[in-house]
Amino acid sequence: MCSLAAAKFLFTSEIKWIIITIERMFDTKGGKMKILIINGPNLNFLGIRDKEVYGREDFASLLGMIRRHAGELGAEVDFFQSNSEGGLIDRIQAAYRDGTEGMVINPGAYSHYSYALRDALDSYHTFPKIEVHISDIMQREDFRHTSVTGEVCDHQIVGHGLNGYLEAMDMLAKWENKDGRI
Amino acid sequence: MCSLAAAKFLFTSEIKWIIITIERMFDTKGGKMKILIINGPNLNFLGIRDKEVYGREDFASLLGMIRRHAGELGAEVDFFQSNSEGGLIDRIQAAYRDGTEGMVINPGAYSHYSYALRDALDSYHTFPKIEVHISDIMQREDFRHTSVTGEVCDHQIVGHGLNGYLEAMDMLAKWENKDGRI
Amino acid sequence: MCSLAAAKFLFTSEIKWIIITIERMFDTKGGKMKILIINGPNLNFLGIRDKEVYGREDFASLLGMIRRHAGELGAEVDFFQSNSEGGLIDRIQAAYRDGTEGMVINPGAYSHYSYALRDALDSYHTFPKIEVHISDIMQREDFRHTSVTGEVCDHQIVGHGLNGYLEAMDMLAKWENKDGRI
Repeated sequence: MCSLAAAKFLFTSEIKWIIITIERMFDTKGGKMKILIINGPNLNFLGIRDKEVYGREDFASLLGMIRRHAGELGAEVDFFQSNSEGGLIDRIQAAYRDGTEGMVINPGAYSHYSYALRDALDSYHTFPKIEVHISDIMQREDFRHTSVTGEVCDHQIVGHGLNGYLEAMDMLAKWENKDGRI
Repeated sequence: MCSLAAAKFLFTSEIKWIIITIERMFDTKGGKMKILIINGPNLNFLGIRDKEVYGREDFASLLGMIRRHAGELGAEVDFFQSNSEGGLIDRIQAAYRDGTEGMVINPGAYSHYSYALRDALDSYHTFPKIEVHISDIMQREDFRHTSVTGEVCDHQIVGHGLNGYLEAMDMLAKWENKDGRI
Repeated sequence: MCSLAAAKFLFTSEIKWIIITIERMFDTKGGKMKILIINGPNLNFLGIRDKEVYGREDFASLLGMIRRHAGELGAEVDFFQSNSEGGLIDRIQAAYRDGTEGMVINPGAYSHYSYALRDALDSYHTFPKIEVHISDIMQREDFRHTSVTGEVCDHQIVGHGLNGYLEAMDMLAKWENKDGRI
């Protein structure tokens, strides 16, 4: 409304971005990209749950695969798994301030109905977020055909098995190197 | 918008406050109404999340506004915010026994699908409950058009911005003074 | 895929069952069946919430009834109640490893939309699970007509009041004695 206030706000924002950019130029961390891997409900039951659909590898194997791949990419990974919708939202919010530079999220069944999780994912866009589903949700029960969370992510990988997580990480690494922040 | 309507509204509000103030002078309880303000998922990201829709004020500002307004009303406020559906239900249940005399609740996206939250709100009716949404949910995405929680509240205020919380508080204050408990 | 690997897996599974069966033959516990009773959101408000639908007995009475019935059946019961979807999933997952031999679950309103809870219930089938609803959900609001969780349980009892829990326990006791593990 008041264009003066608006101008002031935009100016303050600009200053903030310039500072961030300068910080990046002198980045002493050696540029290890910080990737956050979030797994939703029942993913910790990998290897127990429906092996025909999700395979025989257990959750620890998946985390091991991801950790090794992060090493190859020269990235740093942080893991979070929760069966709680609220717990997942809390973690997504924390990522806004903890230096996360890319997110891989498998929201499990919350994908199909959690508008609260959708709102959390859509609440900021300072780094890319990729949704992963192990199975091809489009080939399964009707209720799995919709992903209300995937719609607000930057990309979605479905049906590539555990490998989908690694592909998502590759994509994030390229994203940062090529385009910087989205 | 219409300055005449605005003036009329302000005048009516003034009259209302004078009446409430006089009533309070003769109130022997000491008259502090206990209002509980519940905010659901992502409301704590006010000022970060979609500023076009929710405005630039942050969550702390909202709480400050409410606290000041409670002072003017001579009411006592208690705040609760959670991203967790279960956490919100726990708090609604606790309010049944903690002396709460009126509730303002913004269930965020849980409004659109949480039948568990609906059941909690509908599980007792010993004080009035008002649902508030900052934005006009009817003018947004289809999934926001339904409020399964609003249906079991005593009143709903949508699309009045942060001011909706204050209007809800006014309504609760009148409710108690004029009509006693519902 | 590889039939050799498959054969090896089946053989290992067989060995595991033979060991379990032998353990049972020498069971020193005296054969007390371990039944887990899970109650979802708002069930703890029994006796407060809509007495026309749920009756006047409170939650403590229900637990007392179940405990007495377990005594008559010579079964051991463990109770869990939570308003949180994630908390319920955590408990269902824990039951996979804690020696539970039968489950009675009333998921409350989560029945109607929690695909995450459904996935948890469907993630293993090493003991029978029976869904109970106190009221006849088919005779109430439209949103209660669907139970996404009941579909993956072994049996469902609705509209038998608190007695439904006891019937479910009877059914589990017969299940174990007649057929062993499902």
